[in-house]
Amino acid sequence: MTDPRHSIRLDDFQQLIGTMYGSRDVARGVDGTFMWLMEEVGELAEALRKGTQQDRLEEFADVLAWLTTIANVVGIDLSEAIIRKYGSGCPGCGQLDCQCDQAEKP
Amino acid sequence: MTDPRHSIRLDDFQQLIGTMYGSRDVARGVDGTFMWLMEEVGELAEALRKGTQQDRLEEFADVLAWLTTIANVVGIDLSEAIIRKYGSGCPGCGQLDCQCDQAEKP
Repeated sequence: MTDPRHSIRLDDFQQLIGTMYGSRDVARGVDGTFMWLMEEVGELAEALRKGTQQDRLEEFADVLAWLTTIANVVGIDLSEAIIRKYGSGCPGCGQLDCQCDQAEKP
Repeated sequence: MTDPRHSIRLDDFQQLIGTMYGSRDVARGVDGTFMWLMEEVGELAEALRKGTQQDRLEEFADVLAWLTTIANVVGIDLSEAIIRKYGSGCPGCGQLDCQCDQAEKP
């Protein structure tokens, strides 16, 4: 059973990021915010290559936070995005256990 | 009030991705999966530059899905990652409305 202390709603997190950083994010704009996302993706790559699980926890959080930030800047609801694409199983084959050709994107 | 149809738990989404694609993701490994993430990040950049909101919804979903996929491959719980870093307000200043110097990472 999921530990309720480790269960968060994506919309709550998106709202939290907006509350904490929203005004500066909008002022910075999409391109500048995307640069931050790329910086964190690079740090994630490093953590995956040579980091500890602790490092990885931090970098996954950072990438998700900056992705969420960009979503806020352009007015995208991440929960809506996820549900539209994955709300009915695999977007490619409609199965819960994907049966798509592995060379193609699911 | 959040529409309950558009409210998902991050751990549920991570579990869904694991159920749909888990075996092939583990077989592909971290590096190959990271390549997919980068492909989607590029598509997100394009959608941000010239896409419609519909395009952006799709690409945000894809980036989040592949980020979640890598987390599954390396055994990282995204909810735990987020709560550890952001569970007490801004990691830099501890405030809900961040007061950090804007040149520094929050």
